[in-house]
Amino acid sequence: MTPKIIIGIFGPGEGASTADCECAETLGALIAAEGWVLLTGGRAAGVMDAASRGARQAGGTTIGVLPSAGIEGVSDAVDIPIVTGLREARNYVNVLSSRVVLVCGMGAGTASEVALAIKAKRPVVLVRPSDTTRQFFCRLSDRVKVATSPAEAIDLARRVVNCQLSDL
Amino acid sequence: MTPKIIIGIFGPGEGASTADCECAETLGALIAAEGWVLLTGGRAAGVMDAASRGARQAGGTTIGVLPSAGIEGVSDAVDIPIVTGLREARNYVNVLSSRVVLVCGMGAGTASEVALAIKAKRPVVLVRPSDTTRQFFCRLSDRVKVATSPAEAIDLARRVVNCQLSDL
Amino acid sequence: MTPKIIIGIFGPGEGASTADCECAETLGALIAAEGWVLLTGGRAAGVMDAASRGARQAGGTTIGVLPSAGIEGVSDAVDIPIVTGLREARNYVNVLSSRVVLVCGMGAGTASEVALAIKAKRPVVLVRPSDTTRQFFCRLSDRVKVATSPAEAIDLARRVVNCQLSDL
Amino acid sequence: MTPKIIIGIFGPGEGASTADCECAETLGALIAAEGWVLLTGGRAAGVMDAASRGARQAGGTTIGVLPSAGIEGVSDAVDIPIVTGLREARNYVNVLSSRVVLVCGMGAGTASEVALAIKAKRPVVLVRPSDTTRQFFCRLSDRVKVATSPAEAIDLARRVVNCQLSDL
Repeated sequence: MTPKIIIGIFGPGEGASTADCECAETLGALIAAEGWVLLTGGRAAGVMDAASRGARQAGGTTIGVLPSAGIEGVSDAVDIPIVTGLREARNYVNVLSSRVVLVCGMGAGTASEVALAIKAKRPVVLVRPSDTTRQFFCRLSDRVKVATSPAEAIDLARRVVNCQLSDL
Repeated sequence: MTPKIIIGIFGPGEGASTADCECAETLGALIAAEGWVLLTGGRAAGVMDAASRGARQAGGTTIGVLPSAGIEGVSDAVDIPIVTGLREARNYVNVLSSRVVLVCGMGAGTASEVALAIKAKRPVVLVRPSDTTRQFFCRLSDRVKVATSPAEAIDLARRVVNCQLSDL
Repeated sequence: MTPKIIIGIFGPGEGASTADCECAETLGALIAAEGWVLLTGGRAAGVMDAASRGARQAGGTTIGVLPSAGIEGVSDAVDIPIVTGLREARNYVNVLSSRVVLVCGMGAGTASEVALAIKAKRPVVLVRPSDTTRQFFCRLSDRVKVATSPAEAIDLARRVVNCQLSDL
Repeated sequence: MTPKIIIGIFGPGEGASTADCECAETLGALIAAEGWVLLTGGRAAGVMDAASRGARQAGGTTIGVLPSAGIEGVSDAVDIPIVTGLREARNYVNVLSSRVVLVCGMGAGTASEVALAIKAKRPVVLVRPSDTTRQFFCRLSDRVKVATSPAEAIDLARRVVNCQLSDL
């Protein structure tokens, strides 16, 4: 009777690299395999889209929290579009709704999500971050952890979920 | 490959009448029977809670869009809590995310949802409204319809969904 | 050393009547004459624009809380544009920021502002409302008052401000 | 007849250093001396409070965009409190409303503001940032500039304002 476990994957949209998208797709599949629900920013672009496709193909449920006031631009792999109309203020909703925040790649929107997650005391896992990204966020908070692979990121998330801890 | 159909039920929280809650519970069950997903304001109170329980018992999926910054106070019958932290500004997210807005009972929060739904051009069905409520909102917009029973409200919603119309 | 007194005027944008705009312009001038700051929805349309012009011409300061992500469409008579990017969710910011909410005319956006003001326990004065509007909102809350003229509305607002009461 | 020039100063609240606060107070005074309006996050803490005091003492006008649903906790030096009720989602309003975003010190909330400012294409000046902060944000966007003193930051802001450029 408790709500489902919702895990967020965040990263660049149009500016995502192939490696970012492959990472996100793998993470999405692993989240579905755990029986968790995936949450992303919902658009048909970059990490959001790749993560949703990964989870969908693995039989999972996908939530997309959209910045727009309608469902135009939503990823085909989103089951449940949450239409906020809030533009980038929806990034706050993204991280508050996620039990754990997983990050592939980095851009301005992604950086805002990591920063808001730290502020809201949500655990964050940076998957294969650049040195600059790792140094910046790990100095901001010891709630930010680094994983060297999608599997390690899921292990960290499982630890949060199983222990019912808000912290890694 | 299209997203699920999300239907919103809105009404008073703490101030809901028994009739409002019975109406909401029935509507929740009917929404689940159609294979639609229910969206409410998510709290363990009044119409939100009754609608979620009705949908849950009928095997449906329930989304709760919470005003708080954590899941405290969420209804036991919510599967997917969206944690907004936006207080009553989350009412805008509620109606934008709903293909059709169904209303049982009336309070200040509910009135804001109906008004925001009209502004956002979402179809609204008032179920057994008072004369005052009906007159006020039907004069504001001809997108607002009245149903004399939960079954009639679902018929109206089905017409919107099947025709892929944004309008009733 | 206390903050300035901010009074909101709300009403229809494009759909405002000449009478609504004349009422808003008079109210804006009276607010400036009291030494209060005017807050509106900020756009160059209807009641927002008329109220801002009235206050500006009387030497007052005008805040406009915009739904857009830039200042395009702002009224020429707004001194301080607050750019929210939140679309209609900005209506919640409008009423929370107002010590008293004054209303000329009625539309869907305006109705959402009155309802959100009631929910947030802000005092509301409907200036020359229609019977339907008066009945609907006065039944929702006894915090909603009716004025038969702009001068009477300002008297009611002065009573709130002077007594430091949150209530009329 | 154009709106006033609004310049934002952002930095840590409770975690601000003495140097951050001195920098913010000086910047606030310089903004007032230019005839610009200061915008901050509004609370009686750290950089927000110091910047507002600096601007107030120099005869300027100060806006505070609050995360709370009332004016509790507002800085004594704020003239115009904008009460959002949006918690940290108000950071998006902060940066959208600022013609230029000036930053003293760094914390999670501040990082979200810089990231959202980059996303919204607002020019950002980091005043005496740490190496880690400078590297992280300057790699995210070439719209982010660094100043070695408050006076240099104001020079950069003046260049944006005078040229009516959105860019530095």
